[in-house]
Amino acid sequence: MKASRSFASDNNAGVHPRIMEAIAEANDGHVIAYGDDPFTARAEAAFGEHFGDDASVFFVFGGTGANVLGLQAMTAPHQAVVCAATAHINVDECGAPEKLTGCKLIDLTTPDGKLRPGPLEPCLSRAGDQHHVQPRVVSISQPTELGTVYTLEETRALSAFAHSNGLLLHMDGARLSNAAAHLGASLRELTVEAGVDVLSFGGTKNGMMYGEAVVIFDPRLSQDFKFIRKQGTHLPSKMRFISAQFAALLAGDLWLANASHANRMARLLAAELQCVPHVNLTQPVQSNAVFARLPPRHVSTIQQRYFFYVWNDQTSEVRLMTSFDTTEEDIHNLVGIIEQTITQSSDPE
Amino acid sequence: MKASRSFASDNNAGVHPRIMEAIAEANDGHVIAYGDDPFTARAEAAFGEHFGDDASVFFVFGGTGANVLGLQAMTAPHQAVVCAATAHINVDECGAPEKLTGCKLIDLTTPDGKLRPGPLEPCLSRAGDQHHVQPRVVSISQPTELGTVYTLEETRALSAFAHSNGLLLHMDGARLSNAAAHLGASLRELTVEAGVDVLSFGGTKNGMMYGEAVVIFDPRLSQDFKFIRKQGTHLPSKMRFISAQFAALLAGDLWLANASHANRMARLLAAELQCVPHVNLTQPVQSNAVFARLPPRHVSTIQQRYFFYVWNDQTSEVRLMTSFDTTEEDIHNLVGIIEQTITQSSDPE
Amino acid sequence: MKASRSFASDNNAGVHPRIMEAIAEANDGHVIAYGDDPFTARAEAAFGEHFGDDASVFFVFGGTGANVLGLQAMTAPHQAVVCAATAHINVDECGAPEKLTGCKLIDLTTPDGKLRPGPLEPCLSRAGDQHHVQPRVVSISQPTELGTVYTLEETRALSAFAHSNGLLLHMDGARLSNAAAHLGASLRELTVEAGVDVLSFGGTKNGMMYGEAVVIFDPRLSQDFKFIRKQGTHLPSKMRFISAQFAALLAGDLWLANASHANRMARLLAAELQCVPHVNLTQPVQSNAVFARLPPRHVSTIQQRYFFYVWNDQTSEVRLMTSFDTTEEDIHNLVGIIEQTITQSSDPE
Amino acid sequence: MKASRSFASDNNAGVHPRIMEAIAEANDGHVIAYGDDPFTARAEAAFGEHFGDDASVFFVFGGTGANVLGLQAMTAPHQAVVCAATAHINVDECGAPEKLTGCKLIDLTTPDGKLRPGPLEPCLSRAGDQHHVQPRVVSISQPTELGTVYTLEETRALSAFAHSNGLLLHMDGARLSNAAAHLGASLRELTVEAGVDVLSFGGTKNGMMYGEAVVIFDPRLSQDFKFIRKQGTHLPSKMRFISAQFAALLAGDLWLANASHANRMARLLAAELQCVPHVNLTQPVQSNAVFARLPPRHVSTIQQRYFFYVWNDQTSEVRLMTSFDTTEEDIHNLVGIIEQTITQSSDPE
Repeated sequence: MKASRSFASDNNAGVHPRIMEAIAEANDGHVIAYGDDPFTARAEAAFGEHFGDDASVFFVFGGTGANVLGLQAMTAPHQAVVCAATAHINVDECGAPEKLTGCKLIDLTTPDGKLRPGPLEPCLSRAGDQHHVQPRVVSISQPTELGTVYTLEETRALSAFAHSNGLLLHMDGARLSNAAAHLGASLRELTVEAGVDVLSFGGTKNGMMYGEAVVIFDPRLSQDFKFIRKQGTHLPSKMRFISAQFAALLAGDLWLANASHANRMARLLAAELQCVPHVNLTQPVQSNAVFARLPPRHVSTIQQRYFFYVWNDQTSEVRLMTSFDTTEEDIHNLVGIIEQTITQSSDPE
Repeated sequence: MKASRSFASDNNAGVHPRIMEAIAEANDGHVIAYGDDPFTARAEAAFGEHFGDDASVFFVFGGTGANVLGLQAMTAPHQAVVCAATAHINVDECGAPEKLTGCKLIDLTTPDGKLRPGPLEPCLSRAGDQHHVQPRVVSISQPTELGTVYTLEETRALSAFAHSNGLLLHMDGARLSNAAAHLGASLRELTVEAGVDVLSFGGTKNGMMYGEAVVIFDPRLSQDFKFIRKQGTHLPSKMRFISAQFAALLAGDLWLANASHANRMARLLAAELQCVPHVNLTQPVQSNAVFARLPPRHVSTIQQRYFFYVWNDQTSEVRLMTSFDTTEEDIHNLVGIIEQTITQSSDPE
Repeated sequence: MKASRSFASDNNAGVHPRIMEAIAEANDGHVIAYGDDPFTARAEAAFGEHFGDDASVFFVFGGTGANVLGLQAMTAPHQAVVCAATAHINVDECGAPEKLTGCKLIDLTTPDGKLRPGPLEPCLSRAGDQHHVQPRVVSISQPTELGTVYTLEETRALSAFAHSNGLLLHMDGARLSNAAAHLGASLRELTVEAGVDVLSFGGTKNGMMYGEAVVIFDPRLSQDFKFIRKQGTHLPSKMRFISAQFAALLAGDLWLANASHANRMARLLAAELQCVPHVNLTQPVQSNAVFARLPPRHVSTIQQRYFFYVWNDQTSEVRLMTSFDTTEEDIHNLVGIIEQTITQSSDPE
Repeated sequence: MKASRSFASDNNAGVHPRIMEAIAEANDGHVIAYGDDPFTARAEAAFGEHFGDDASVFFVFGGTGANVLGLQAMTAPHQAVVCAATAHINVDECGAPEKLTGCKLIDLTTPDGKLRPGPLEPCLSRAGDQHHVQPRVVSISQPTELGTVYTLEETRALSAFAHSNGLLLHMDGARLSNAAAHLGASLRELTVEAGVDVLSFGGTKNGMMYGEAVVIFDPRLSQDFKFIRKQGTHLPSKMRFISAQFAALLAGDLWLANASHANRMARLLAAELQCVPHVNLTQPVQSNAVFARLPPRHVSTIQQRYFFYVWNDQTSEVRLMTSFDTTEEDIHNLVGIIEQTITQSSDPE
């Protein structure tokens, strides 16, 4: 029996077949552990092509590890990381950034999950005052946790602000490929050319089994990173199996094809949802997430048929995520169930 | 071209074919992320059969994470972990235990990597004195990093000592299956029945791709562990792919077959090496490691043909590890090269 | 020449003469270090009389240490401390709470520096969810950093809310004596009888030279505190000199007399300021702090005569603190200068 | 009644009268808190005269704080601090260095508490290997915890070794004045001129009430130290009272007079003890500590008359500390009691 596809998260999906093949091919005899192997060399070369030869890339097991260790490379404990209140590092990592970097997170409330230079300015007002944490990093998620995408101009404005104030720019790119697909821009344009200093580049949500990458553009920050990774418990012994996945994802256009597909499914879902009475989209659809308000009394009924998460209980706002393997049929089924549930009710609200 | 098998480490090996199949089978549609899926339920049931229903099991990405998070569950930062000087947590984890638990490690020098109650006693002399860290955990590796195996009696003596002094017993079982194969004892006898409180159970070195388990036998220690794991950056999103591996490893006898084979290969290697002039075994062979002294001047020549690590430069002692996929032919080839290199030399020493 | 008294902070004041005498008397020969001395026994007895015999008291060097170590005793790193956005632990301790406890601080914006149960409730919405930090402590400042004082009912409502939700109540009482003076309540009524679990009790701002106390009302939290204090670098070797100060402060009514005087001076200052044109009080005066808006263009002129801190640059709100040694003359002088500066200006705004 | 002087520790002594006077003089009106006051300026100038104008000095409350924060300024968490097994940071700070820096301490066994370049060399064998902590600091105590003093040559040899291997030299100088008195060398010769990078300079054990100093000779290490101190909970609010003590200690020769006196008393004690049968000195007497073996059966009897600490229960070795206020009469009394107890016994051993 085929398990049904949910809209709960892109990490509910499995692994793309071409990634599975790459894993199988890598399972051939012995290679040196911890990254000194040809698969890792190939994956690093693929990153070099996308991000430039000055980028250093370090593979780690998972996304929280990538974010936290990247931030640790950028900070001392008396410094602070400024982020959106909705940032994954702020709400979804169980305090890992604070515990592992020692830093305070300064979280700013935003309507759309995006930071902008203006609201960052007050954070700098106590620069040099020993009583207060010193902002050192601006951390943005691209796309944001609300599915919105920073334009290249917006990212550049943030990096210019950061650098002119002695700060660094960190990007949580767990779904960076989706942002690239949306903008039609290269990974390099989105990151190093827009002034990003350290990037978490996501593989798992784009069709990999596990594995994320910390990409460091400033050589001074990468110098000790192999120790930070190992002490941070994120040096995989059978590294080749992460490397082979990344090589398969990035060597051709799989990264982009997967992300483009998921984005297209999200736009289709949004288009169809807009036609359902009593359903309101709450964020522009720029990646593979659709945020919508459903009538509160129907949410749990719908969830029983297709699992997804309620984003905000107060406002009955839900998050629907598409994946590399979402089908048009999935969309029609979901929207059909939503429509049916709402309209067949005597009191649709 | 088939890559050759090395004797550098069991983590230079790839993935056992049955594990690969289990991964492929798990790649079927969507399941909920982070462990609320049927594969994880099945794997947990398999652990329950081996370790008893009171055991709580938590899957994590890797072995350093398993050790450090298990220790964190057992300690407060002013406490100390007593271990052998050769312990993986002491020398091979780049200080992760200290950074992530805040505790001091008290390391004791041993001839064979094994702790014993007698030498532990002086560590307790400052109990209650606020100036000194308070030993809280005795951590042993089973098998040790020197390939030796604690007998059931030895483990029980340590747990009795620990518990009667208000301490807990932690076991780094990255290769626990090899110890079980050597002793002909069940995993339960080796652990909970011998008084172990928290166990790191290794999968990667016994034929898995990635994934280790923290097994907690005392419910008071497991209570908050899901938060410790998440904050510790070791909650895998696509958990099913670790779970499916563990289910395949533990549901039948694969765990034991793999370990028994590796142990047998180690014994064969030891037996053949003993016949080579100028080679001396330095530890009893009780798992899948062989420690031997080679003539210093020949080490690098031999390494060029078959890669392995020098354990101790001073004494020219090398470590040769066998794996689930080591063949008798590999052994003969290696020993042949060693013998040839030494004996063809005009000055074999 | 006598240095002039400022209104910058009560820690700009010196040491009360009776405290100086107590220090001098304690300087008599040798006593055992680290607290096993008769002065400490006497001070502990004085705390027992004020806070009850179940209270454990631990002296530390300073206030940030008292707060951070008290919080450490109450938390595990995956838990969170909820506090007002204005809390000293949130803004004035350079991130010490995050680094030293590993916890996230969840800061709530308030008009008057006071937490209340209603706004705390949303913080609990993710209880049990491993992705999110788990609130464990509600931390309040009494008086608040805005000079306001929680009534006994308000404190009891917070402790009831905390305890019924499995949380603990921490009180930063750096100026607790001022709150007691304002309410006419005993220290016991303000703390343990109102449900406080751990208290930082301030000495330095009420006429001592240095030294604060962590008072722990729940024996389970105090059990390991001597180790937490020592590892937290706050075990004074010549402890008697802190103890003697606390004994002098608390044995009679010096603590109350000092605080009452400072409060009275603050009320006098407020009363006089209210008569100055273009000056507006912004918080009720309930302790030894007066918050007022001054005309922006005159602030720096006035500061040159009497130093004080601007609390909020945007709103031109300043903080004026009185001390145990503030005189009526100081008040008249300050208000005179303010009045003169504003009214002699051709454009007072 | 005058309390008797013990030989337990120099921190059982009180405060030197001239220090008390300086404190009283500093208690004059208001000054700005946290160090922006004339007393601190004066104290800093005194340090400048002793240590050179390039030295940055930061006052903290206590010695453990001074050591830990100094080490934090020198390290990243994946690095290690190499020290003698007897070092205060290793055994007497309840794990504060590990918790607060995240670093491992590598402790070397020594006969006399002194590190030397030879035994340090093996610590460097894994430089650059990501699995292992990377030694970054050599930390020595001057004098050592065994009362021995590094000669200038010995210190210079260590700093040369450290610097030529990319390491830094830290000195725990809780009793540095005693070492200076013994060597007849200036503080500058003992520290910056001998290659020390960061120093903990002790005040409390040499006649102050509280207060230690972190002296940083390398400007790159001092740059962020004010934040490290504040986040490290060691920024005293009424700073002037520490500063005034240091100014009194260092402006004239009080620091040297106190230390010289204590050293002389130790030499006298050693000389007299050598004449007592069954008593053996175990370390050369080079500062204010005398280590001696007493007959085991008499130790507790003697302790009842004059309190001191047993250093090593196994060997019945005791530590006798003299202070700035130890008198010749104290020495005679103590030695008399020891002699009487031993010789009047029918079985002196």
